[in-house]
Amino acid sequence: MRKVRASIIGFGSVGQGVAEVLLKKGDELKSLGIDLDVVAIADSKGAEVNLAGIDLKAALGRKREFGTVAIDNLTGEDVIKSVDHDIVIETTPTDIETGGIGLVNMVAAFEFGRHVVTSNKGPLALKYRELVEAANEADRKLLFEATVGGAMPIINLVRDTLAGNEILSVEGILNGTCNYILTRMMEEHASYEQMLAESQELGIAETDPTYDVEGIDTACKLVILANSIFNQDATYQDVDVTGITKVTLESLSLAYDEGYVIKLIGEVKKDRLRVSPRLVPASHPLAVGGTLNVASVCTDLAGTITVTGRGAGSIETASAILSDIVSIYKD
Amino acid sequence: MRKVRASIIGFGSVGQGVAEVLLKKGDELKSLGIDLDVVAIADSKGAEVNLAGIDLKAALGRKREFGTVAIDNLTGEDVIKSVDHDIVIETTPTDIETGGIGLVNMVAAFEFGRHVVTSNKGPLALKYRELVEAANEADRKLLFEATVGGAMPIINLVRDTLAGNEILSVEGILNGTCNYILTRMMEEHASYEQMLAESQELGIAETDPTYDVEGIDTACKLVILANSIFNQDATYQDVDVTGITKVTLESLSLAYDEGYVIKLIGEVKKDRLRVSPRLVPASHPLAVGGTLNVASVCTDLAGTITVTGRGAGSIETASAILSDIVSIYKD
Repeated sequence: MRKVRASIIGFGSVGQGVAEVLLKKGDELKSLGIDLDVVAIADSKGAEVNLAGIDLKAALGRKREFGTVAIDNLTGEDVIKSVDHDIVIETTPTDIETGGIGLVNMVAAFEFGRHVVTSNKGPLALKYRELVEAANEADRKLLFEATVGGAMPIINLVRDTLAGNEILSVEGILNGTCNYILTRMMEEHASYEQMLAESQELGIAETDPTYDVEGIDTACKLVILANSIFNQDATYQDVDVTGITKVTLESLSLAYDEGYVIKLIGEVKKDRLRVSPRLVPASHPLAVGGTLNVASVCTDLAGTITVTGRGAGSIETASAILSDIVSIYKD
Repeated sequence: MRKVRASIIGFGSVGQGVAEVLLKKGDELKSLGIDLDVVAIADSKGAEVNLAGIDLKAALGRKREFGTVAIDNLTGEDVIKSVDHDIVIETTPTDIETGGIGLVNMVAAFEFGRHVVTSNKGPLALKYRELVEAANEADRKLLFEATVGGAMPIINLVRDTLAGNEILSVEGILNGTCNYILTRMMEEHASYEQMLAESQELGIAETDPTYDVEGIDTACKLVILANSIFNQDATYQDVDVTGITKVTLESLSLAYDEGYVIKLIGEVKKDRLRVSPRLVPASHPLAVGGTLNVASVCTDLAGTITVTGRGAGSIETASAILSDIVSIYKD
């Protein structure tokens, strides 16, 4: 049995999802040889530290009641630097302009010899190469399955399950909000504006939906895929991006009459990173509806492998984080 | 760099595919730290043994020209017992009545301390528990991604990528021949008999199609999934099986008018193993056409993950074998 001490840095929806999943899966982890204690949780107001292991149920309750877990006046960075532990679960909000505190936290984690498992796209979309080098130098792991497609496995699928294959391209629907809006426009014969409003009401789209509907979120995920699969050093600026705000009901209807749907497709090849609304045959594996995510990986040996799953949700994202934690410690 | 010596036991379509893939991917394997030599190849007429490493290109040429690689009068079992090597790639034809020589070969491999990577369903569908125990006792691996769904990753997906999840069920289309016949009946408005004849002409169905169209192949794959995912000790007799021979064009057309397709679905739950033609909504992720295979894995955390890929083909199956070999030696 391997004793593992973890911190959760960032205690919003995903961080709380991680706590819930760890609460639920303690025995499962032990059966895999991992005895994991969360020894610190940090949110934007402070932190709780307990080297004997935090009572996650109590922490979740306190967060819900008071909006914070803060007991000590420590930042996430302070925790990473001062609390003795093995693995940083970095789930702070993403910042695609500068990488934000997520980037600071990851750099600090490697500096102090800790593994990083993260759902935070910004740092990876901006500073992938530097982070990988920092991880290698510290002989620690940087795992980020949760950054692309939530519970839909794509990064680990390519790395492990398709090992030995040359990856020729990846294309897919990597943003559930856009997929929901486009799917619902056709189902309800409604305008973009109407279905954006509906998805905002349902909490599927943010009050400011720019990040999703302009394709920025998809572009960040493409950059992460390009860097990790093709070992590139791409950044957000390298992606040719068109969002869904100009997609009309008329174009969806015309496509439908010819047996097509319109989807916001992200495409990664060695020489192209592109996000754009595209026609997809209605019977094609990429033509999934609702908030689903999907990715098709084109390979030299295995042909095309397509994987579909829930691209968002705190528990689903936490599931991807859990599988990354297991992969660090198994064997 | 890890020096690995392998044998290929069974040199039909899949065995030759493995040789082709190893020829093509030698450098790729070296970049993963694996320096693999094939030191023996056996087919039904004899074997070639060369401890310095067989020239795979020459062996493939000889097989094509003379129908055999035989130089020495040795069986596969002889090779496994007498040639010093690390890993047996077992690709003999499947025998679901007794397990056949595949079973004998696997037992011998563990007895002599060698890993087994296989595409051979029969032994696993009949004697899963015994084989796993023999592997554990010998402290060797038994890997069999290639037995279910060809290049479509399902066993390793569940084991690695969905680690930590409880698997609630797996359902899918696990036989490309049946999927092809049902897809083409609807496309051509033709009878089962007509499209069976077409698929036999194209080499998609065997001259005796019983194994595929009666659902036996799907049932064997379900048994392997049940045993490996749910740690059961199921055998073929535990599966409730109905094939596709009674599916009529009329029923397909009626389904189509209501927005459904009919697919031969295999279903694994803790308490049920079933193969039967079922209605699937046309827009459902399981509704893939042609010879494609698909599997939906229902989990407690990650929700439902669906994976689609080519279920057959020698190179695709060899790709699954390659990923298993890599997984033995990586890290």
